[in-house]
Amino acid sequence: MSTWGEHFRVTTYGESHCRSVGCIVDGVPPGMQLTEDDIQPQMTRRRPGQSALTTPRNEKDRVEIQSGTEFGVTLGLWWQHNGSLPRPSHADFTYLEKYGVKASSGGGRSSARETIGRVAAGAIAEKYLKLSHGVEIVCFVSSVEYLKLLETITREKVDQHAPVRCPDTEASERMTKVIEKFRDNHDSIGGTVTCVIRNVPVGLGEPCFDKLEAKLGHAMLSIPATKGFEIGSGFGGCEVPGSIHNDPFTVSTTDGAQRLTTKTNNSGGIQGGISNGASIYFRVAFKPPATIGQAQTTATYGFEEGTLEAKGRHDPCVVPRAVPIVEAMSSLVIMDALMAQYARESAKNLLPHWQLPFPPSRQLLPMVPQPHRYC
Amino acid sequence: MSTWGEHFRVTTYGESHCRSVGCIVDGVPPGMQLTEDDIQPQMTRRRPGQSALTTPRNEKDRVEIQSGTEFGVTLGLWWQHNGSLPRPSHADFTYLEKYGVKASSGGGRSSARETIGRVAAGAIAEKYLKLSHGVEIVCFVSSVEYLKLLETITREKVDQHAPVRCPDTEASERMTKVIEKFRDNHDSIGGTVTCVIRNVPVGLGEPCFDKLEAKLGHAMLSIPATKGFEIGSGFGGCEVPGSIHNDPFTVSTTDGAQRLTTKTNNSGGIQGGISNGASIYFRVAFKPPATIGQAQTTATYGFEEGTLEAKGRHDPCVVPRAVPIVEAMSSLVIMDALMAQYARESAKNLLPHWQLPFPPSRQLLPMVPQPHRYC
Amino acid sequence: MSTWGEHFRVTTYGESHCRSVGCIVDGVPPGMQLTEDDIQPQMTRRRPGQSALTTPRNEKDRVEIQSGTEFGVTLGLWWQHNGSLPRPSHADFTYLEKYGVKASSGGGRSSARETIGRVAAGAIAEKYLKLSHGVEIVCFVSSVEYLKLLETITREKVDQHAPVRCPDTEASERMTKVIEKFRDNHDSIGGTVTCVIRNVPVGLGEPCFDKLEAKLGHAMLSIPATKGFEIGSGFGGCEVPGSIHNDPFTVSTTDGAQRLTTKTNNSGGIQGGISNGASIYFRVAFKPPATIGQAQTTATYGFEEGTLEAKGRHDPCVVPRAVPIVEAMSSLVIMDALMAQYARESAKNLLPHWQLPFPPSRQLLPMVPQPHRYC
Amino acid sequence: MSTWGEHFRVTTYGESHCRSVGCIVDGVPPGMQLTEDDIQPQMTRRRPGQSALTTPRNEKDRVEIQSGTEFGVTLGLWWQHNGSLPRPSHADFTYLEKYGVKASSGGGRSSARETIGRVAAGAIAEKYLKLSHGVEIVCFVSSVEYLKLLETITREKVDQHAPVRCPDTEASERMTKVIEKFRDNHDSIGGTVTCVIRNVPVGLGEPCFDKLEAKLGHAMLSIPATKGFEIGSGFGGCEVPGSIHNDPFTVSTTDGAQRLTTKTNNSGGIQGGISNGASIYFRVAFKPPATIGQAQTTATYGFEEGTLEAKGRHDPCVVPRAVPIVEAMSSLVIMDALMAQYARESAKNLLPHWQLPFPPSRQLLPMVPQPHRYC
Repeated sequence: MSTWGEHFRVTTYGESHCRSVGCIVDGVPPGMQLTEDDIQPQMTRRRPGQSALTTPRNEKDRVEIQSGTEFGVTLGLWWQHNGSLPRPSHADFTYLEKYGVKASSGGGRSSARETIGRVAAGAIAEKYLKLSHGVEIVCFVSSVEYLKLLETITREKVDQHAPVRCPDTEASERMTKVIEKFRDNHDSIGGTVTCVIRNVPVGLGEPCFDKLEAKLGHAMLSIPATKGFEIGSGFGGCEVPGSIHNDPFTVSTTDGAQRLTTKTNNSGGIQGGISNGASIYFRVAFKPPATIGQAQTTATYGFEEGTLEAKGRHDPCVVPRAVPIVEAMSSLVIMDALMAQYARESAKNLLPHWQLPFPPSRQLLPMVPQPHRYC
Repeated sequence: MSTWGEHFRVTTYGESHCRSVGCIVDGVPPGMQLTEDDIQPQMTRRRPGQSALTTPRNEKDRVEIQSGTEFGVTLGLWWQHNGSLPRPSHADFTYLEKYGVKASSGGGRSSARETIGRVAAGAIAEKYLKLSHGVEIVCFVSSVEYLKLLETITREKVDQHAPVRCPDTEASERMTKVIEKFRDNHDSIGGTVTCVIRNVPVGLGEPCFDKLEAKLGHAMLSIPATKGFEIGSGFGGCEVPGSIHNDPFTVSTTDGAQRLTTKTNNSGGIQGGISNGASIYFRVAFKPPATIGQAQTTATYGFEEGTLEAKGRHDPCVVPRAVPIVEAMSSLVIMDALMAQYARESAKNLLPHWQLPFPPSRQLLPMVPQPHRYC
Repeated sequence: MSTWGEHFRVTTYGESHCRSVGCIVDGVPPGMQLTEDDIQPQMTRRRPGQSALTTPRNEKDRVEIQSGTEFGVTLGLWWQHNGSLPRPSHADFTYLEKYGVKASSGGGRSSARETIGRVAAGAIAEKYLKLSHGVEIVCFVSSVEYLKLLETITREKVDQHAPVRCPDTEASERMTKVIEKFRDNHDSIGGTVTCVIRNVPVGLGEPCFDKLEAKLGHAMLSIPATKGFEIGSGFGGCEVPGSIHNDPFTVSTTDGAQRLTTKTNNSGGIQGGISNGASIYFRVAFKPPATIGQAQTTATYGFEEGTLEAKGRHDPCVVPRAVPIVEAMSSLVIMDALMAQYARESAKNLLPHWQLPFPPSRQLLPMVPQPHRYC
Repeated sequence: MSTWGEHFRVTTYGESHCRSVGCIVDGVPPGMQLTEDDIQPQMTRRRPGQSALTTPRNEKDRVEIQSGTEFGVTLGLWWQHNGSLPRPSHADFTYLEKYGVKASSGGGRSSARETIGRVAAGAIAEKYLKLSHGVEIVCFVSSVEYLKLLETITREKVDQHAPVRCPDTEASERMTKVIEKFRDNHDSIGGTVTCVIRNVPVGLGEPCFDKLEAKLGHAMLSIPATKGFEIGSGFGGCEVPGSIHNDPFTVSTTDGAQRLTTKTNNSGGIQGGISNGASIYFRVAFKPPATIGQAQTTATYGFEEGTLEAKGRHDPCVVPRAVPIVEAMSSLVIMDALMAQYARESAKNLLPHWQLPFPPSRQLLPMVPQPHRYC
C-alpha cells in the first residue's frame, strides 16, 4: 500500500507518465503557515535536469496545494471574532475546539463535498464486485413495506421515483409533499434509507472486532448527518422471541446442486459477524439537515446570545442524495472484506489436503436468496 | 506498538522478569496441523545457556499454546459428518464456510467468552479516563424514560436493580417476569441498553471516516448479538423538524468562567463527528440469544431436514450481562480517540503562537452537561 | 485519518471550497477495464441541483482519473508480446509477474517519479519539526571523513558542492570525474549518502517492532535503488569491543542547566530503539542505476536470448538527486514518531503526580550534541 | 483481526473452551497504579451465573496480569534515586526519559526476552511457508565466503558448527577463540549474520513504501542490538558499474518447462521491491553487547561521574543466538507479504479473462535458483 505513517500519514499516487503525481498528507498540525513556497525548494532539488551529470529531462515539478490550507495556514483559518455565531448542530464549534482553526466557510473536512471521493472509490469497488461475483447493491429511501422490495429492487426503479428515490409511488408522493412543505418553511426533515446487497459471497467479515455488520455500521455512521444503523431485524428484532427470530436452515436446490440456505433472514445476511450468502440489508437514519433558513437562537464565541439565519437555499432533506453515498460505502466495506477473505481462503487452499477430513476448497459462492419473512 | 504484520499479525508481550512472555498470532491459516512441537525447536535454539560462550542462565522457555488449536489443528476442527445440524442464527454455518474448520463446541472466536479480554482492557482504559478527566461511563438496560437518567445514573444504582440492571423499579420487575417466562419456555428474548459517557473532553473524533459515533457504532456492533445502534436522537430524530432538532448554543457559567454549551442534546454529545463536551449517549439493540432449549427445525450439512434442541441451561436474555461489555467498548473508543487528540493538540500547541490570531492552547475540558430535552 | 480499508484502501481529500476534492484508491485489482465513465454515473446521482427539492447549487462534479490506468485498464497495460525484453535489474519482470499488467513505459509505481509525493510531504513535516523543535535534517553524499561533518554541515554547504553534493571539495571533484566517465561509457555507478538529524527530542521510537532505527531503515530501503542501511557505527561497529563501542554517559551543562549526554555517539543517537537526544546519523547505499545505454544480454518473455540498449540519456548516478528524498523520508519518520510520543507524553502527564516518586513531566528537549568519536 | 485501536491497542485471544482467554493491551499510559483489583470488578459483573435469570455456569474468570506492571504501577517502576547509574549504550536512559518509569531490572520491553514471542510466531509462519511453497529459511554467522553457501546451506549444517553457528570450520574455530578471549576479558564483540530465503514465490512485496527489502530491513533492525542491514550486493554493490551489477535474464528449463531466471543475483532476489523468485539473501550487523563486566565510566542521574561493572555472566557475543530470531522475523515478513499477494492474485484471477491480451492466472511459483556470482 502506498501509505506511510500513522499520525502524519502520507499516501502517494502516480506513475512515470500520468496526468499528475502527488500525495495526500493527513495529520498535519493545524494552524501552521504553509504555502507552495515551503515545498517547492526540495522539489526543485529533487527534479531531473540539474546538471550535466544527470538525465537531461527538464521536468518542472511545480507544486500545487489542492486543499487543506486557507490564507496560507493549514486547515484553513476562521477569524474567530467574538461576535461570530457557531451554527447549531453543525461542526463549527467542535472543529474550532478540536483544531483551533476552521475553514472560513462550509464544513471543512466534514463537508458533504468530502463524500465525492467516497462515491468515486465506491464506483470502482462496485464494478469489481459486479464483474467478479455479480454483487448488486441498491439503496432506496425507506417506506413501511421495504422488506418486500429487497430481492427485486433495482437502481433503475429507484431513480424512476426521483426526486425522492422511494420506490413506492404513494409513499414517494407523500414524502415529496412533506419535503416541499419543510423547504417552504425554511426548515428541514430527516429520514431513513434501506440498502440491500445481493449475491455477497459466504464467509466475509471477521469474528471479533471487525464483524461485517460492525464495519457496515462504522461506514454508514461516518456519512455526515447519520444517527442510527440497524442490520436485519434491527431494533425491532429485540422484541421477538428467539424461537421466532432464529433463521432455520433448509435445503435449497439450484441448477441441480443442493445447498443450505435459511428460511427467514432476520439475521440480515450476517451470522456471527460473517456473511452467510443471504441478502445483506440494513437501515440508516439521517437527521434533518442542521442548516435551515429559519432564525435560530444561539450564542457567540464572545458569550452573547444571538440569532442566526442561513442564507441561500439548502437541502431541506439529504436522504435522496444520500442514496449513492450509502451504496458507495457498502461497496467499500464488501470489497475490503472480500480481499481479506481471498487471502485467508488462498492460504487455506494451499495447505496439503490430507490434513483435513473434509474438502477444504469451497468456492466463494452466494447462497440462493430466499424470500424472507420479518419476525 | 508491539504488533507486526497486517495479514499474519503478531502481538508480543513480556519484559525481562515477568510471569510469562508470549504472543498472539492472528491470521494463521486455518486447518494446519500445529502443536507445541512445531514451535519448541526454534525456541530451544534461541534460549540462553547453550554453550560456554553464552550466558549461563539456563532458561527453559517451554512453549504452551493457550488457544487457537484443537486436536492439533489450527482454529480447531469440527468433524463435519453430514448428519451435523448447524444451529440456526449461530456462527456454526458461517465459520465452517469461512475457515473450513470450526471449534468442536461453542462459538470459537465469536464466543461470548471472547469478550473477557475486552472487559479487562476496558477496565484499564476506564481507570485512566477517570483519573485524568473524571470521565464516567454508565450503561443500563433501557426503560422508556431513559433520557431522564442520563445525567445522574451511577453503576451502583444500576447494580441495585440486579439481576436486570434496569434502574427503574417498575420496568425492572416487569422485565424480570418476562425473562423468567421466556426462560421457563426454553425460549429467549432481546432488549436494548443505553450508555452514557459523561465528562468527555471536547474535540475527540476524526472528521471523515472515523467520526466518534462511527467508532462507537463499530465497537458496539462488534459485540455478539447486537443488531442496531443509535446515537443521541437516533432513529426517532429523523422525524423531527430541523428547527426543533438543532441544539442551540447558549452561555453557561461554572465557577465564574463562561463557556458555550447547548440547550438541548439531540446530537448526543457529538457534532460533525467530534465530541462537543456534552454527555454522549447511545442505545444498542441485542437480539434474543440464538441458543434455545425448544426444538427447532433446521437442516444437516448432508442436506436432510432435522430438528435441534439445545441441552443445558442458556441465557434467556443477554442484555443484563452485556452492560459491562458495552462500558468496556465505550472506554476503548474514548481512550483511543483521546490519545489521538493528545497527539494533535500537542503538535498544535508547540507551533509559534504569533501565527494565529487567537489563543491556540485551549484545554481539553468538558462542557458543563446541561439538562437536555428530547425532540 | 481520512483512510478507509486495509486491502482496498481509500484516502480522500478536500473541503467545501478548495481547488479540487478527490481520493486515492490503493489495491484496485489489476487488469480491470476502468474509465471515468464507470465512475461518473454515481457522481451524477450524488451531486446537488437534481430537483426542486434539493439545493439549487449546480455543481458539475466531473471525474478525472489522474493515474493508475492506461488504455482504460487498471494499473496500465503492457503488451506482452513474446518478443519483449524485460530490462535487467528493473521492475519490468516482477511487475508483470505480480500484477499481470504493467505500465507501457517507465517503472509504474516503482518509478522515481513516485518520490515526488514523498518530497512534498516531507517538506511539510520538516517545516513543523523546525518550527517546533529546531530539528535540522541534512543529507549529503558520503566521503571518507563524513563523521567530522555531522554537527556542522548545512544544506547550503551541501548545495555549494553541486552537482555531486559531497561537501568535501577534493572528494567531490573526484566523484564528478568518475560519474562523467561512467556517463560517457553509457554505464552507471552507485554510492552512499550520509544523513544527520540534529536536535531530535529524547524519547522517540517504540521499544519493540517499531524501534526508531527500524523505521528509518524501512523508510530508506523503500527509496528506489537502495541496497543497504546502517545506523551509527553500523557494520563497522561489529568489529569493535563493547568496552570501546559503548557510549559513556557524562554530565553536560548548557545555559546553567545540567543534563546527561554521551561522550561518544556510536549509538547514532538511538538506544534501545529510542532517541537519546544526540544527533541521529545513518548511511544509505544506492546501487548503480539499472538503465544503461550499453548493450546488455537478456531474454524475451518468449524465451529467446536477446540484447537490450536503453535509448535517450539516463542518470549515470542517482545519489546526488537522492539527497532531498532521504531528507524527506527522514522527516516523515521523525514526525510520525514525535506525534506518537506526544500522545503518550500527554497521557502520562495527566495522571495524578502523587503516584510517582519522581517528577513525571520532563520536557521533550534534545540533549546537547557532543563532538563524537568513531570507535 | 482481533485488534482494536491505534493508540490504546487491544488484541484479544481465546475461544469457548481453551486453556485461557485474554488480551494484550499496548499503549497503556506509563506510571498508572494498576493491579488485578482494578480489573476484576467489571469481570465479575460480566461473568455468567450471577442470577437465576442467566446461565447457571459458574465461571470464575479470575484476572491475572502477566506482564507490564511492577509494584502495582504500569510499565514497572524504577526507583530513580539520583545515585543510579544508567548503563552505557543500554535502554536505561532512553526508557526513563520516554516513559518516566522503567522496569527495576532488565531491559523492559527492549529485553532480548521479548524476542521469544517473535520466535514462536515465526515458527508458525515458517511451517506454513514450508508446507505450502517449500520455502526454506536458513540463517548463519557470516564468514568471508558466505555467497558460496547460499544455495546449499541447511539448519542442520549450521547447528553442526555450534556454538558459533558459522558453517565454515576454520572461521568457526577462529571465532570461538575470539569470543572466548572477549568473554575472559569481561568484554564483548559483535558480528554479522547472513540469511537466505529460498523458494520464495514471485511477486511478493509492494511497489512503494512496503518494498520487500524495506520490510525485511525494518524487521531485522527491530531485533535488539542490530546496527545495519544490506540486501543482495549491499554496500559493496555501490562500487560496481551498472553494466556488471545488473542481473541479465536468461532462459531456464526445469521439468521440461521454460521460465525466465537471472544469470546473477546481485539483486538479492528482489527487483523494484518485489520478489523475482531467486533466493533472497541479506546480511545483518550486530553490535557488541552493551552489558560488560569491565568497569565503565558513566554518570548518575544526579549528575555525578561514576563507574559501573555488570555482575554475573553475560553473553560476550549475541550473534549465534540471533540466528533463530533472524529466521523468525524473515518468516513473518514473507508470510505477511504472501497473504497480501494472495488477496491481489485472487482478485485479479476472478476478473473476466477476455479483458486481458495475455493469460492472467500465473501460478505463484519460485524461479529456479541459479548459481550466482558476486559483482
